[in-house]
Amino acid sequence: MSTPDYLTGNKEAISQFLDKFDVFLFDCDGVLWSGDHLFPGSVPTLEMLRNKGKQVVFVTNNSTKSREDYRKKLESMGIPATVEEVFGSSYSAAIYISRILPQRHPELKKRNKVFVVGEAGIETELDSEGVSHLGGTDPAYRRDVTPEDYKLMAAGDPKALDPDVGVVLVGLDFHFNYLKMCYAYHYIKRGALFLATNMDSTLPSAGALFPGAGSISAPLTKMLGGQEPMAFGKPNQAMMDAIEGKFKFDRSRACMVGDRANTDIRFGLEGKLGGTLGVLTGVSTKEEFLEGDTRPAYYVDQLGDLVET
Amino acid sequence: MSTPDYLTGNKEAISQFLDKFDVFLFDCDGVLWSGDHLFPGSVPTLEMLRNKGKQVVFVTNNSTKSREDYRKKLESMGIPATVEEVFGSSYSAAIYISRILPQRHPELKKRNKVFVVGEAGIETELDSEGVSHLGGTDPAYRRDVTPEDYKLMAAGDPKALDPDVGVVLVGLDFHFNYLKMCYAYHYIKRGALFLATNMDSTLPSAGALFPGAGSISAPLTKMLGGQEPMAFGKPNQAMMDAIEGKFKFDRSRACMVGDRANTDIRFGLEGKLGGTLGVLTGVSTKEEFLEGDTRPAYYVDQLGDLVET
Repeated sequence: MSTPDYLTGNKEAISQFLDKFDVFLFDCDGVLWSGDHLFPGSVPTLEMLRNKGKQVVFVTNNSTKSREDYRKKLESMGIPATVEEVFGSSYSAAIYISRILPQRHPELKKRNKVFVVGEAGIETELDSEGVSHLGGTDPAYRRDVTPEDYKLMAAGDPKALDPDVGVVLVGLDFHFNYLKMCYAYHYIKRGALFLATNMDSTLPSAGALFPGAGSISAPLTKMLGGQEPMAFGKPNQAMMDAIEGKFKFDRSRACMVGDRANTDIRFGLEGKLGGTLGVLTGVSTKEEFLEGDTRPAYYVDQLGDLVET
Repeated sequence: MSTPDYLTGNKEAISQFLDKFDVFLFDCDGVLWSGDHLFPGSVPTLEMLRNKGKQVVFVTNNSTKSREDYRKKLESMGIPATVEEVFGSSYSAAIYISRILPQRHPELKKRNKVFVVGEAGIETELDSEGVSHLGGTDPAYRRDVTPEDYKLMAAGDPKALDPDVGVVLVGLDFHFNYLKMCYAYHYIKRGALFLATNMDSTLPSAGALFPGAGSISAPLTKMLGGQEPMAFGKPNQAMMDAIEGKFKFDRSRACMVGDRANTDIRFGLEGKLGGTLGVLTGVSTKEEFLEGDTRPAYYVDQLGDLVET
């Protein structure tokens, strides 16, 4: 395995690095900001890249926010961005369901509804792709399970289980409950595909960890005897395929920028991108980048080092 | 591996079988009844055993019911029983927490409260052993998570996280939610033991399967990087130890009766009981009992064959 090139302070190397790529995919937390703190070099770096005519894409596993919600979050952090530059795991799942699934699973063509376990971000992205859905934020699913529910589900009664549901899509759901677990399980047992926006087991907030989307799908995996969902977030390549499907870029001219070796850098390496850039302002340490199993092609102390040489 | 003795229709063999044991541990669903249907031979068999002075124990993994609740269920099925004859996974967990844990984990002596994810059956059994608890059916935990929750939990603020909590006990919880997952995770990260009443991934109801206690603990296991809870239901031997602790019986003179090779029969075999009796009125087939990896010492077509010869 080769040693990553260290770019910080090396003007010549940075210039060559930038010339190699047309597209930069950015992980956000740990790269552009940390928690509520925007890194000072983030905005100048993005500006420099845009001025050079590079395409920037903000890639997020966050499934609760739609692209527009996430654009607003970028804006609130002080980073100007367009909706088109944002690529989230919910959007990635929606694209897969609307564009790829009908070809791969023609048997599901007539079962074109999605049962959602998740928040509004998923619903917005399914709507943007014209995909019908139920569950999700519908308050009718925020209640206790009743003996009648058991009977109707056990009987496969269409009053409980919509026969048009061909996909169960699970993301982070702050309103996850027993009833939704029952529905999701019974739809899958009746032939629906089991998809997840992403498999992050935890979600960082306020400096600590809380349950992530991967923990919401865990009970279903347990009930299904270990069956894992098909997932769309980094490092899953379904996400890269969806990004490529949208931006039609040349993978050899694209670079993934991230702070985590095992998700961001792995995502770029397995996607056979032309390059990967590690930053040391997040989770992975210099030792991980230099000696780990998953090494970026390049690394910098911080993203802003690309402009401040 | 030896072939199980088939007792049905063999009066002499049945008589010898009965003479070997003083205590009979019964799995219930699939042995005494199926769903709402009581098998006709169940009551006469239990009567015959009691008339012969045998101790009968009803062993259930059901964590939502207290022993008294379960006794009522037995009664409603037409089976007379006393509370003392009922042994459930919640009671098993309560006994472990009150009697064994203080010796095994002296460091938790001052952290003597249990955070419960589960229903009233767990609370009743903890109360019966004088163990303090919080969470559970308290309506204060049936709400959405707020930004304030994140901050308080991240800071380990005693307003959110009671410093006296030394155990998280997870059972089947029909009111499971995101907030309880957050609490359970943060208590465990702060040193609380991770216990589960039982690990059944599903719960049969109305002829179909629904999420079981093992699915309720699955998100925590996912968040904790794969850490499994210590569990008390069959086939876990913590349950057998608790039963022995209470009834003080001679294991060589005890027989486990069940319909499932991989839980009931395994429970008896790993517990080194004198005998195991499989019945063919539940989940396991004759082939499983005769050719599987976990074989009972004896089997009958149905429990009632012990009296109707």
